[in-house]
Amino acid sequence: MNVNGRPYRTIWFNDAIDAVEIIDQTELPHAFVTRALYSAEDAAEAIAVMRVRGAPLIGATAAWGLALAMRHGARDGDLDRAIGALAATRPTAINLRWALRRMAGGLRALPTTERATAAARLAAAICDEDVAINAAIGDHGRAVIERLWRAKGAPGEPFRILTHCNAGWLATVDWGTALAPIYRAHDAGVPLHVWVDETRPRNQGAALTAWELGAHGVPHDVIVDNAGGHLMQRGQVDLCITGTDRTAANGDVCNKIGTYLKALAAHDNGVPFFVALPGPTIDWSIDDGVRDIPIEERDANEVTHVSGQLDDGKVATVRITPAAATARNFAFDVTPARLVSGLITERGVGAASRDGLLSLYPEQVNAHEHGST
Amino acid sequence: MNVNGRPYRTIWFNDAIDAVEIIDQTELPHAFVTRALYSAEDAAEAIAVMRVRGAPLIGATAAWGLALAMRHGARDGDLDRAIGALAATRPTAINLRWALRRMAGGLRALPTTERATAAARLAAAICDEDVAINAAIGDHGRAVIERLWRAKGAPGEPFRILTHCNAGWLATVDWGTALAPIYRAHDAGVPLHVWVDETRPRNQGAALTAWELGAHGVPHDVIVDNAGGHLMQRGQVDLCITGTDRTAANGDVCNKIGTYLKALAAHDNGVPFFVALPGPTIDWSIDDGVRDIPIEERDANEVTHVSGQLDDGKVATVRITPAAATARNFAFDVTPARLVSGLITERGVGAASRDGLLSLYPEQVNAHEHGST
Repeated sequence: MNVNGRPYRTIWFNDAIDAVEIIDQTELPHAFVTRALYSAEDAAEAIAVMRVRGAPLIGATAAWGLALAMRHGARDGDLDRAIGALAATRPTAINLRWALRRMAGGLRALPTTERATAAARLAAAICDEDVAINAAIGDHGRAVIERLWRAKGAPGEPFRILTHCNAGWLATVDWGTALAPIYRAHDAGVPLHVWVDETRPRNQGAALTAWELGAHGVPHDVIVDNAGGHLMQRGQVDLCITGTDRTAANGDVCNKIGTYLKALAAHDNGVPFFVALPGPTIDWSIDDGVRDIPIEERDANEVTHVSGQLDDGKVATVRITPAAATARNFAFDVTPARLVSGLITERGVGAASRDGLLSLYPEQVNAHEHGST
Repeated sequence: MNVNGRPYRTIWFNDAIDAVEIIDQTELPHAFVTRALYSAEDAAEAIAVMRVRGAPLIGATAAWGLALAMRHGARDGDLDRAIGALAATRPTAINLRWALRRMAGGLRALPTTERATAAARLAAAICDEDVAINAAIGDHGRAVIERLWRAKGAPGEPFRILTHCNAGWLATVDWGTALAPIYRAHDAGVPLHVWVDETRPRNQGAALTAWELGAHGVPHDVIVDNAGGHLMQRGQVDLCITGTDRTAANGDVCNKIGTYLKALAAHDNGVPFFVALPGPTIDWSIDDGVRDIPIEERDANEVTHVSGQLDDGKVATVRITPAAATARNFAFDVTPARLVSGLITERGVGAASRDGLLSLYPEQVNAHEHGST
């Protein structure tokens, strides 16, 4: 996507400095800083301290980290050491392990002299594949937006989309998932306005989504998470699109806490509610998401404390509760499939149901029947 | 209510210092500070800079301000001057004008020598009446809580109540509205736990409700506004109680932004959703609250900036959005009567409907019929 009129990905190889570069997301939204990675250690540090975040981007950074390692030494021992260091950065990140396994599988079969070149090619391919998946989600979602925009019959007015959290290009290599349809439609000339839920407690909407949309030039306003119901009730929202961290086989979607409340308001007011996702985030082993998807509870400090920029430009953290107050911090909620108008995937748009998902991923029919015997 | 084990109102006459005292709410939740008011000027300043807030408490403070003025001079000119100064502090506060009119009506008929004593008596009566109204709301609401608690049939477990914003004793002279039933039930020995919505953008829940409940000893946890739907879906909420800023004649309730989303979640999960209100906040002139209650839009800075306490104890404000981001700030929303299980008033509990309200306020039957011809 564009930053100040120049196209960027979140990670790329920069020939001019012979190194990998990333956008340092720990500086956002208060500063736009890119950072060079020269070694696997640099890549591991970037993942560990969350200069890069979002499952697809973590995987891509690990792949590039392994490619950088191969330039300094490409024997099996070097490979194992680099994989160990990179895998240790975020113990629960699935994409990280998947990317490292794929890299290792491709490299072990090669002579050491060919590994550095092959690793760079493979890391670039992993990035390109992520971009292609998200671009496909964007194209299918753009068709949804254009259909609803035309049906609205007010071509001069902005078409108003509400989104929650950040499922944007910063979480991927490019395009994002929920925001991909928005970027595609905007770039195609559909006049959009985006309501950006701030997304407490971590404020990914207020910080990252607002920054992304602003940098690319998509009109938007930040709102508190409380406001969406009122806006839908007063006819100020034409469409909701969110991402999902995990989608159950019955179409229930687990996403950032608060998504369910917006889906309820959309349902109550006849506003279409779509969820964008890459196929690999579907958990075919879970038949009832509301009942069976476990919800992570995080540190209460994320609720009681808020970080931002002081007038003098310094970043600081303030406590908003009484010193003695306790808090609870549930990270996700599950939106029942009955509230979801459709699922936007890289293969097209399907109903939020078992049948809808299987029509897009027919190869899972047998896998699922096998699994449930 | 209690603060550190000692009972307090938000305003009282302190014989020991021969002055009115208030809790300085601009210091909450980070410090508990009381402040003496010796003159009408002191009272006007306290209202203007929001050392006191909440419609009933503003009215009570204005009444005491007028009583303080009478001690320094009780001629008609003194009365008019004090009323003018106090009325100018918050131009749109209805209770302020009502309290001043009531005081002036009582005082003008008296000889100047009797006005100071009568004014103090009248200000004290206005305070006591507010306490009585809220205590009655508390008693009727406590009966609702006890009935649902018994029906739950788990006497050893805490009965879990979710509330939004601050409709507590800090907004009134004592007890509050939505929190009055909670204090009454807690004091009567019902084991309660309160989920406190932080209530963005002004964080009245995180700051004031959490402080009140903590000071009085009611177990509670602060949660982000996004969390309530998840908690209701997982059976972690037994009852919702909120206040209301304005109630339409059809039972629609206008309250702090985000109330509607919680009412939707309560409805979707079979959780009772009650609204507590004093009769005077019913707007008998509005027949359809969702359609006709105007919604105030406030300064976007309340969304983009958050205030709290730094580690060193200083209070600071941080910006959570990109510098260039725009925001919108809708202060209230309207919850349709169909989502409200009942209205808790000083006269008892009624259905959220025209018939329910008229059964509690039968004197409005003729007034309304007259008004609609």
